[in-house]
Amino acid sequence: MAHILVPEGVPGIRSLVMFRPETGKHLYALAQVLLRGESPLTPAERELIATHVSARNNCMFCMNSHAAAARELFKEESNVVDCVIENVLTAPVSPKLKALLTIAGKVQQNGKAVAPEDIVEARSQGANDRDIHDTVLIAATFSMFNRYVDGLASLTPTDPKEYEAMGKRLATVGYALPQPIKN
Amino acid sequence: MAHILVPEGVPGIRSLVMFRPETGKHLYALAQVLLRGESPLTPAERELIATHVSARNNCMFCMNSHAAAARELFKEESNVVDCVIENVLTAPVSPKLKALLTIAGKVQQNGKAVAPEDIVEARSQGANDRDIHDTVLIAATFSMFNRYVDGLASLTPTDPKEYEAMGKRLATVGYALPQPIKN
Repeated sequence: MAHILVPEGVPGIRSLVMFRPETGKHLYALAQVLLRGESPLTPAERELIATHVSARNNCMFCMNSHAAAARELFKEESNVVDCVIENVLTAPVSPKLKALLTIAGKVQQNGKAVAPEDIVEARSQGANDRDIHDTVLIAATFSMFNRYVDGLASLTPTDPKEYEAMGKRLATVGYALPQPIKN
Repeated sequence: MAHILVPEGVPGIRSLVMFRPETGKHLYALAQVLLRGESPLTPAERELIATHVSARNNCMFCMNSHAAAARELFKEESNVVDCVIENVLTAPVSPKLKALLTIAGKVQQNGKAVAPEDIVEARSQGANDRDIHDTVLIAATFSMFNRYVDGLASLTPTDPKEYEAMGKRLATVGYALPQPIKN
């Protein structure tokens, strides 16, 4: 049961933004522009960074829902998602994406853990300022979402089918604010 | 020097939202409603929670700027800010605020660190659902801001006078988006 009274049966962050839509609308707008807006990184790559950070924070709701979204977006290469959850270093991703995922993993620990060498490595693999910016902000943003979802003990479904459905919705509709329940 | 090319001489998060205003506008809108919008917690108390989390993340830019804002807002009780940075348990704050700061400190570690007993203790000291929600979301949001600011190595001023000026601005104007520099 969640630590506060949220709509029953509604999972994860959706229940929290229904509790407080005034903050929720900015959280969803941020997710939409950050994960679906213009970027040198594809939506699939951005969902993969979100999945990686959520896995490192043991946030099962965020990890499973964004992994499902990433699998939808990677299509026939969807096996890459589980490989990244397992081990970034051995995952079949480009050297550029590997360097960015490594930066994201450091941001998950603490911003100061990102070393100049990590940036040099990412640039040598073709990353530009926007790749680096978006990676750091996605990793920072999921450090927030993971804590919001778990810090209030919101509902984490256990049925993989529920995440599949979320993944399809996130891959097609994106981040649309759930409507508050009228009493 | 920051890891990416941001406007020279502009400190902390301001330089980053000038680099990417499309995400920046949602970050500032979130900060404004979360720290200044309607809440059972005063703006001073909310800035104190932000300061506490930033101190625990060793994010000097966020800690110093929000400590300065909190000092402005607490007025003659501004000594409370340094006491909280030093040690929450011995700080001269109400039992309710102490319980909420303890929850914020756990969120800073990981959302799952918040135990049902922490919630019971906060409620027994008078906290309601909105107090708990806002505390967790402020702590989660600063876990993001701290990582964004430090993960891109944005400029951290060392002159206390600069933070005093920021504190005055945050206490009066709030979170207004800096305008991008036109080239």
